[in-house]
Amino acid sequence: MLEKVILVICDGLGDRPIKDLGNLTPLEAAKTPNMDKLASESECGMMYSLGRGCVPGSDTSHLNILGYDYREYYSGRGTIEVTGVGMKLQEGDVALRGNFGTVDENFIIKDRRAGRIRGVAPLAQALDGIEIDGVTFLVKPGTGHRAAVVMRGKGLSSAIIDADPHKPDVPVREVTPLDESIEAKHTARILNVFLKKAWEILQKHPLNEERRKKGELLANYLLVRGAGQYKEVPCFKERYAFSGCCIAGGGLYKGVAAYLGMDVIDVPGATGLPDTDIEAKFMAAISNLKHYDFVFVHVKAADSFGEDGNFRGKKEFIEKIDHAARLFHETSENTLLIITGDHSTPCALKSHSGDPIPIIFRGTGVRVDKVAAFNERDCTRGGMGIITGMDIMPQVLNLFGKLPLTGA
Amino acid sequence: MLEKVILVICDGLGDRPIKDLGNLTPLEAAKTPNMDKLASESECGMMYSLGRGCVPGSDTSHLNILGYDYREYYSGRGTIEVTGVGMKLQEGDVALRGNFGTVDENFIIKDRRAGRIRGVAPLAQALDGIEIDGVTFLVKPGTGHRAAVVMRGKGLSSAIIDADPHKPDVPVREVTPLDESIEAKHTARILNVFLKKAWEILQKHPLNEERRKKGELLANYLLVRGAGQYKEVPCFKERYAFSGCCIAGGGLYKGVAAYLGMDVIDVPGATGLPDTDIEAKFMAAISNLKHYDFVFVHVKAADSFGEDGNFRGKKEFIEKIDHAARLFHETSENTLLIITGDHSTPCALKSHSGDPIPIIFRGTGVRVDKVAAFNERDCTRGGMGIITGMDIMPQVLNLFGKLPLTGA
Repeated sequence: MLEKVILVICDGLGDRPIKDLGNLTPLEAAKTPNMDKLASESECGMMYSLGRGCVPGSDTSHLNILGYDYREYYSGRGTIEVTGVGMKLQEGDVALRGNFGTVDENFIIKDRRAGRIRGVAPLAQALDGIEIDGVTFLVKPGTGHRAAVVMRGKGLSSAIIDADPHKPDVPVREVTPLDESIEAKHTARILNVFLKKAWEILQKHPLNEERRKKGELLANYLLVRGAGQYKEVPCFKERYAFSGCCIAGGGLYKGVAAYLGMDVIDVPGATGLPDTDIEAKFMAAISNLKHYDFVFVHVKAADSFGEDGNFRGKKEFIEKIDHAARLFHETSENTLLIITGDHSTPCALKSHSGDPIPIIFRGTGVRVDKVAAFNERDCTRGGMGIITGMDIMPQVLNLFGKLPLTGA
Repeated sequence: MLEKVILVICDGLGDRPIKDLGNLTPLEAAKTPNMDKLASESECGMMYSLGRGCVPGSDTSHLNILGYDYREYYSGRGTIEVTGVGMKLQEGDVALRGNFGTVDENFIIKDRRAGRIRGVAPLAQALDGIEIDGVTFLVKPGTGHRAAVVMRGKGLSSAIIDADPHKPDVPVREVTPLDESIEAKHTARILNVFLKKAWEILQKHPLNEERRKKGELLANYLLVRGAGQYKEVPCFKERYAFSGCCIAGGGLYKGVAAYLGMDVIDVPGATGLPDTDIEAKFMAAISNLKHYDFVFVHVKAADSFGEDGNFRGKKEFIEKIDHAARLFHETSENTLLIITGDHSTPCALKSHSGDPIPIIFRGTGVRVDKVAAFNERDCTRGGMGIITGMDIMPQVLNLFGKLPLTGA
């Protein structure tokens, strides 16, 4: 009987035929003997993480794949990023992500990332705990120039525009409400007061005094975006009776896992970049089966190569994933191994697309089909057919014999 | 990158296995080397225009295929026919289609088409503009014995029965409301007054005086049916950012296109009948790519052969389509070519059915699958899987990179 699950998500894995690869996709062109062997031992299919006709974001797609319908549980990127840096949200909180950026005396943005400043913890700390009209601002540092912001208080709303205009050489935006509600107006007003106050504090902050002396760009404005209002999310273990953990380099994926109450395991060498140590991640996934029922492993860089239009890089990175995937040949048949992506990132588009992604299920009880290669075209002929992200967890529960009976 | 779209809809294309064709469908039995080659360069699938378990009408199926959910945008055949003859509808108008027919002195229908009269424009003109209790009747001639009628005024409803009983030798129907609303009662009452008045005018019309002298059937009654109430439809260009045109012989298809704000291109020789000049239509489709982003070409007669139960005629007509389809071999790979049908019209049934129809997508970026023949059974193994009509436009937008991101 099945006992454990490893879910491997290769970000942006899917692609489209590329002339310079002989009209193959990077996944088809890549030599993937290990994943092909795994596919030959699997039931295969194609998966639209959000459904046909949707281009999935990384946040929404992961929610669906993990069995949380994004239409119900996605409330803006802010909530996920904030959870990802370890903050605990409460019902009604408005969460934002943001950058420490540089503005001039007229509030024109000179650099959205303050020269890619690092070590912003003292700046975040200086803003943490400020209270304005009954709303408390909690501010924590993110990676690099990033910050996470929580507004906590009564009568808040996430229906507000970003203060961050997403480009330099324009003024920072005054936050305005997106609807006519009292809550949105209230939230926008208070956030504007806070951002002004934050600017005053940051301007005079010792860290910025030092940067001024060195002629460096000041980190003097908090450019916030992606407001989301938190409502309680049932934790993964409660929902599926699987204790779960996440192994990922990228903050967003750790954030999604934390958002669902999974433990986040830090693996040395997991960077979320092309240099990431995939083998270390897969080894950690296997060894964590001792402690967890469900291990979610995320590998990022195929997506980044797709965003850059670098199809050779994407192909080579997929070959690295495949090389590390040899480790899965030895996993017990009582471990359900799932390998898929979260969405396609076609090199020709340099962005996410709505094309489906191959998916394989390997383990005891699976109806192994005749597909013998892990790629976009072979897997269309798999036994699983064409599924959505929201089909995955019910399929897992079914294989475990954990789905309830409908009727008698 | 993709730049243009040609959508070819072969009406009533799908069928069922026929003993006399060696248990093949007409499409399978037909020699279709050109469409087979196109299929081998395509991603293929099967399409239910309205969804499983629905037998599509020609109007509803075309709406869905063009991305307008019939459950939202279909409001009776009248609206489409009326638009097809060039009338502009306003929100709240009730549109009807009708025939000029022959009734005797007791209002018994002697011929529903007045001996298939032609040249009804003077009759329509005599009825055009009549006003009854604040409702204006706009009447335009259709093809042959047909007319298009618009009721314009406040408080109208399309919830009324047809005045046309759809068979001869019975009395014309008094129009009655289909629900208890004041609007339906009001509309029925006024329409009855109009039809009576129209009869009075038609009886004495010079054109009928002449027919009486010649011993021809009088066109003395307007048999109306298919009431639909217009509500505004977002135009195709606005909805999809594609300028669109339609090439069709049949009025209904031109009507659907006009209803969606597409231009209708008249191609000499496009008759909507078995003698139609398919090559001229396909050539016009290709040459109109210079002027339009999206060309919708409709070919009718396979459906008519199906309705007649003439499977050999259907097979031969499909071979004619295939011969003309050789023209598409030369279209640029930056043109997305889609070939499909609107529904099946099995010769054994002599009517539309709910069986799905093969569909192919050919052009840059498409994940070409292993299907090498365009027919009902090979296409079931295509990479696209089984889709609905409403999946087509999102899939087009996805290939063009035009779908919005859901999430971040």
